[in-house]
Amino acid sequence: MTQSVLSHPHFISLEGGEGAGKTSAITALRDLLQARGHEVVLTREPGGTPLAERIRELVLNPRDEPLHADTELLLVFAARAQHVRQVIRPALQRGAFVVSDRFTDSSYAYQGAGRGLDARWIAELERQAVGIKPGLTLLLDLDVREGRARAAGRDLWPDRIESEQDDFFERVRQGFRQRAVEEPQRFRLIDASQTPAQVGAAVRDALWQWLETLETLE
Amino acid sequence: MTQSVLSHPHFISLEGGEGAGKTSAITALRDLLQARGHEVVLTREPGGTPLAERIRELVLNPRDEPLHADTELLLVFAARAQHVRQVIRPALQRGAFVVSDRFTDSSYAYQGAGRGLDARWIAELERQAVGIKPGLTLLLDLDVREGRARAAGRDLWPDRIESEQDDFFERVRQGFRQRAVEEPQRFRLIDASQTPAQVGAAVRDALWQWLETLETLE
Repeated sequence: MTQSVLSHPHFISLEGGEGAGKTSAITALRDLLQARGHEVVLTREPGGTPLAERIRELVLNPRDEPLHADTELLLVFAARAQHVRQVIRPALQRGAFVVSDRFTDSSYAYQGAGRGLDARWIAELERQAVGIKPGLTLLLDLDVREGRARAAGRDLWPDRIESEQDDFFERVRQGFRQRAVEEPQRFRLIDASQTPAQVGAAVRDALWQWLETLETLE
Repeated sequence: MTQSVLSHPHFISLEGGEGAGKTSAITALRDLLQARGHEVVLTREPGGTPLAERIRELVLNPRDEPLHADTELLLVFAARAQHVRQVIRPALQRGAFVVSDRFTDSSYAYQGAGRGLDARWIAELERQAVGIKPGLTLLLDLDVREGRARAAGRDLWPDRIESEQDDFFERVRQGFRQRAVEEPQRFRLIDASQTPAQVGAAVRDALWQWLETLETLE
């Protein structure tokens, strides 16, 4: 039954906590890829299709009912299964680059490290329902309190995840860093405490290096 | 990682296709259990909690987007994970009987046999996210065309599942029967082509026998 999870070179994900500057980084990636003549599909998780966005809404705003950790995990993977089949695979198959604001690493970080769910269970869902991972993942790493201070005031009504406490986000951060240690060939760890200009330069450098690697392979 | 799926003696499920008479059977079970002084919780799947009912709505009416089989499976199990934790386990723990219109067997039948998903993958989801199964399952077995003829006209707007073709429902029926063969100690196969009075008598007989078995055990 076990299926493998293949990385695709034109699939790039951004990971990191709140306030780390993912949105600016995604814009920088898009501009650079488009300047090189590539079609770029920008997308995000949880979400990326109309149905997956409706699932996202259930995850972030379950109303008056406690959302159990396994329910959250399965909803996030349901959205991801749909996202991969409706958006990501078709785009990659026609030769486009796909840049996603979060992907499966976020499940290992938030539902795994954050909520304490078994990483082997998450890996099983990844193998069975996703089957693909990015060729390049940029992890914008930032001190939890600094990230939250930056993100504060951005939302008048923080969602369920944003309302978690610092120790939850500290586990999430360490979960991301652990992923980067486990897959050093895929991850680029970027110090997001730098100035926006410095972070932007690091993002572009990482992409340039990746494109050069691809050119020597292709 | 592997966890086991334990059956609970006070947990009863009804399974079968459309038009087989599940609703009447559930009423008969409730009346008989209440007459014996038991608290009875009636519930259904997909659904059973406000959040799980919102997930049900996504499954049955995904709007203009094709719902992929793995997405459907994960949504159904997300709803079930929530249902078990919010409703079924708390009710069983306080000593109530739980009678559910469908449970995990429906996933083996509809998403497994019907849509062709691997039963081992469904079993993994059952172990990891559900962990419980009924002590008694009544399968109301009925010829597909007869069931559809009975159900016809009940809904002005058939949902996505109801709109499937006969060969899909034939695979679902055989999937249910296969489940009954694999777990004969849990299943009671009831011929739903009989008159409503006969089906009602068979349902009550099955429950009486089950309660007698429990009394000799307790």
